[in-house]
Amino acid sequence: MSRWEPDAASRLMKAAIALFDEQGYDATTVAEIAERAGLTKRTFFRHFADKREVLFSGSELLEQCWLEGIAAAPADADPLATVAAGFDPVAQMFAERHAFAGLRARIVLTNLELQERELIKLHKLAETVKGALLARGVPEHAATLAAHSGLTVFHVAFAHWVRQDDPTRFRALLDESLAELRSVAAGAAAAGH
Amino acid sequence: MSRWEPDAASRLMKAAIALFDEQGYDATTVAEIAERAGLTKRTFFRHFADKREVLFSGSELLEQCWLEGIAAAPADADPLATVAAGFDPVAQMFAERHAFAGLRARIVLTNLELQERELIKLHKLAETVKGALLARGVPEHAATLAAHSGLTVFHVAFAHWVRQDDPTRFRALLDESLAELRSVAAGAAAAGH
Repeated sequence: MSRWEPDAASRLMKAAIALFDEQGYDATTVAEIAERAGLTKRTFFRHFADKREVLFSGSELLEQCWLEGIAAAPADADPLATVAAGFDPVAQMFAERHAFAGLRARIVLTNLELQERELIKLHKLAETVKGALLARGVPEHAATLAAHSGLTVFHVAFAHWVRQDDPTRFRALLDESLAELRSVAAGAAAAGH
Repeated sequence: MSRWEPDAASRLMKAAIALFDEQGYDATTVAEIAERAGLTKRTFFRHFADKREVLFSGSELLEQCWLEGIAAAPADADPLATVAAGFDPVAQMFAERHAFAGLRARIVLTNLELQERELIKLHKLAETVKGALLARGVPEHAATLAAHSGLTVFHVAFAHWVRQDDPTRFRALLDESLAELRSVAAGAAAAGH
């Protein structure tokens, strides 16, 4: 990033998400995003390959946070607990992004291509988490089941979090979702939730 | 289907999968598929929108089988057992398709676009299964967790089944995969598998 454009990526993200929300994702151009952010198109393309990437640029950081959490898990943690060890850094990462995440989630839902891209990114994240489990010696099937179920737990909690008002609730929602997976897998009727 | 082309769809599927395997998916044209099957391009397009659809035409039948199994589940079955009630008809549907499924799985792995399409189809299937659970009164989060974990169970068993030689093993592999999910969710180390 250039020293002449402090926080350009963040300004572009805010401008993009505001425009997508106001006038729709399809109708918004890179030129408009750059203009709203008070920057040039050239600066935009130094930070993002296209307007879609503005919505998905956070996925690398998410992956990095999750892997850091897994790396810090005790060596004897079971596979699902190891996956859940990523919840702390992930929740911290999202703590100050509640408004952005909520708007972003609404925008993704308006566009089939964005929904598909989201699905693919989440799948890749699950495969990365699975790879981290394999590297810790977790057997293949257990790693697949723990990683992909863990991503479903994340997805359920995330969808709940962005729809409610309290930004600080994400960590608690992750725990609740994990407990619910354990309950469902144990054959509980899971009524009354 | 026309009475003049008995089993045209099946012949086209076999021809397509053989050509994809021999010369690659990208290099194969609809004209070649039709010719190999001894049919016309026009007949091809009466059965499939494009060559990709040949690989995904089974997904409607899979969905239908799964939903039939769920409909036959006891009313008091827990959410995950309800999802697993689809395993019987699903395994029956695949029983005579082992060779096709194995070839198809190999072909999908050669092409990123096909992998993404597969992922999206599986996600849609999970959402359909979730819808069936919601219709039975299962609460939202439990339905999401049971449906998506159930699809991961299916995916693990399926990937194992197509890679091994015994076509009759799919039902047993589904049960093993389900037991392993329950074990992982219960916090077992799942070692020695």
